[in-house]
Amino acid sequence: MKKGSDRFMALIVQKFGGTSVADAQRIANVADIVTQAYRAGNDVIAVVSAQGDTTDDLEAKGREIDPSPSRREMDVLVAAGEQISAALLSMAIQRMGFPAVSLLGWQVGLETTSAHGEARIRRVREDRIRKELDQRRIVVVAGFQGIDRSGDVTTIGRGGSDTSAVAIAAAMHADLCQIYTDVDGVYTADPRKVPGARKLDTISYDEMLELATLGAQVLHNRSVEMAKKYNIQLEVLSSLTRKPGTIVKEKRNMEKMLISSVTKDENSARISVIGVPDRPGLAFKIFSCLAAKGVNVDVILQSIGRNGTKDISFTVTTDKMEEAIGLLQEHLETWGATSIVSDENVAKVSIVGAGMETHPGVAAQMFEALFGENINIQMISTSEIKVTVLVNKKDADLAVRAIHEKFFGAD
Amino acid sequence: MKKGSDRFMALIVQKFGGTSVADAQRIANVADIVTQAYRAGNDVIAVVSAQGDTTDDLEAKGREIDPSPSRREMDVLVAAGEQISAALLSMAIQRMGFPAVSLLGWQVGLETTSAHGEARIRRVREDRIRKELDQRRIVVVAGFQGIDRSGDVTTIGRGGSDTSAVAIAAAMHADLCQIYTDVDGVYTADPRKVPGARKLDTISYDEMLELATLGAQVLHNRSVEMAKKYNIQLEVLSSLTRKPGTIVKEKRNMEKMLISSVTKDENSARISVIGVPDRPGLAFKIFSCLAAKGVNVDVILQSIGRNGTKDISFTVTTDKMEEAIGLLQEHLETWGATSIVSDENVAKVSIVGAGMETHPGVAAQMFEALFGENINIQMISTSEIKVTVLVNKKDADLAVRAIHEKFFGAD
Repeated sequence: MKKGSDRFMALIVQKFGGTSVADAQRIANVADIVTQAYRAGNDVIAVVSAQGDTTDDLEAKGREIDPSPSRREMDVLVAAGEQISAALLSMAIQRMGFPAVSLLGWQVGLETTSAHGEARIRRVREDRIRKELDQRRIVVVAGFQGIDRSGDVTTIGRGGSDTSAVAIAAAMHADLCQIYTDVDGVYTADPRKVPGARKLDTISYDEMLELATLGAQVLHNRSVEMAKKYNIQLEVLSSLTRKPGTIVKEKRNMEKMLISSVTKDENSARISVIGVPDRPGLAFKIFSCLAAKGVNVDVILQSIGRNGTKDISFTVTTDKMEEAIGLLQEHLETWGATSIVSDENVAKVSIVGAGMETHPGVAAQMFEALFGENINIQMISTSEIKVTVLVNKKDADLAVRAIHEKFFGAD
Repeated sequence: MKKGSDRFMALIVQKFGGTSVADAQRIANVADIVTQAYRAGNDVIAVVSAQGDTTDDLEAKGREIDPSPSRREMDVLVAAGEQISAALLSMAIQRMGFPAVSLLGWQVGLETTSAHGEARIRRVREDRIRKELDQRRIVVVAGFQGIDRSGDVTTIGRGGSDTSAVAIAAAMHADLCQIYTDVDGVYTADPRKVPGARKLDTISYDEMLELATLGAQVLHNRSVEMAKKYNIQLEVLSSLTRKPGTIVKEKRNMEKMLISSVTKDENSARISVIGVPDRPGLAFKIFSCLAAKGVNVDVILQSIGRNGTKDISFTVTTDKMEEAIGLLQEHLETWGATSIVSDENVAKVSIVGAGMETHPGVAAQMFEALFGENINIQMISTSEIKVTVLVNKKDADLAVRAIHEKFFGAD
């Protein structure tokens, strides 16, 4: 941070998603946001995603040629999307009378692994961006794309522009990384479902990570992890409302609030393997057989052994259910288990909050709220700052409202 | 050139224009042409333009944001077009089971001046392309784009992919540079207009240059100049018919044919400045006033002075006529000239042929053919290997046929 003669000057990274740059009018709106920060005396780096459905359209073009195209060439193809939006935003900023320059992944020197389509960022070179900032230019970076050690174009996976932005913020020692989305912050619960839901002023990295894992599509998981690692202050805010959003940072002064947010995830299915012989290593075999095929399991419950057998239950995302059941069926006989039972009619309801680390009894309050509405809990999973319960899908919205009222009170 | 055990192996550059890669089916056709050359044992570099109207569409996107956008950003924007088609062609080749790799302007190391939108090629680095060819990969290069010394994306102007292809052919010491277009070669006259028109097997660089200048849109002028300079053998052929096209090369054994081609150009207008005082320097002033505003003039005719005045006539392209007249009007009084007369109802008919350098009387034969059809010649212009006459537009097709019959005989 630098102190100006009469104003606070900082280096700010601003990331704009695909809907924020979907057409000429929205690009003009983004240019207005960017130049406002610039006019206030800040150095500004804008990181952009591809416009609207561009990435999907380009992928479809590739798959029309080859249903399973080379990932290297697919990266070259889709990287054109961010190239286009970066050039357009730079033009829009210049049109408003401010100096701007677009930079692509290879120009920024955003170096990644060679895992095309899901590359990991190794480092971001400082020199080119610094040179442009030193000339008081607004730097517009094409997100999502990088370059590997062979000089090939890579992309860093879905939601990658968030991660690009945080990586650039870390490399450039930015004071703030703003992630502009179509919501205006992080809420105590889904405001469309829970009337009393409140926007949070701040949330910790760990809480945000738990929320991202729980399917809140506000921030990409990897970007939060990286922000935490490099202690980059994030702000989640809307490109339309122009109001302060939610700051994501390391909370040093723990607040009184026990929990930050109540969430619901209906994209889960429960699978139970029934009658598993009570022998060591079988649970390991079950989960490693799924992991080997890339099926992630979540909430796990193992019944107490009875008659020398036990039942092992867990959740998977709905789209992986059929595949998981197929994999388990193959080995059922070998393991000596009886049968497989599944249920898609479930939902995960979770509370997340750094406060619960130091305040016992938070889970109990959650269960009390559910009991008060006569909602049956099928499974329970906890971490230091999260409690998740599995309930019947029809009870999920009521469960969220009841828990929200318990912790935040009716609005 | 290398001799294989039982076959001729060469390095071939193949360039495909926007219509040749307009959709998935045409890209598959191009992949077939490329792999056919590869299967025959050749090393192959394919240079591609953007698909169909992509360049125009991207430019329109930019102009929607800013009617006169930064040329640097416009280059970043439109370069996405060739990036997309290069990735798609590489995928199509791989889909057929052959190894391919796409390379963008900066990856090829096609270094240019910084004149965005109309950059000149400085040099092409050999190393990356060579590395890929050494691994027997088909290299697909995004045409039209390069990189300047600051590491910025540049484009080399309309028709630039032809020039990219020839520059790469020169740098890599290719044996042949094939330019695939929508016509199957260079003809003695427009085959749609002249029934007896024949496809030429070969034509010299100089003849091809004269034809390019005369508006034959077969090859871009700069590409022919560069091919001549580096002695790169070109072949103009169709991506659809798969027949041998026309070879453009230095003709060492001059053929008997006096002329190569008869052409017509209806995109000309005649302007006459009447009653120009017969003073030294006035002709210079007239043409420099036009040149200063970028108006190119062609066939020039100056009448013999009479009563101390003369008339100066010349042709411009039709789209520049109004501008030229406006510029001349501004100075008419200063010069002491009387008036300006113009006529859009004219056409240029030309014969081109390296043979006429050594055979006097070629122009006379052309005039005889026109006389035989009672066609009036308004103006005449000649170079070593070209004779151009200006005739009334209604006579142009008849003129071409009569001249063609004179030199090539009825078919």
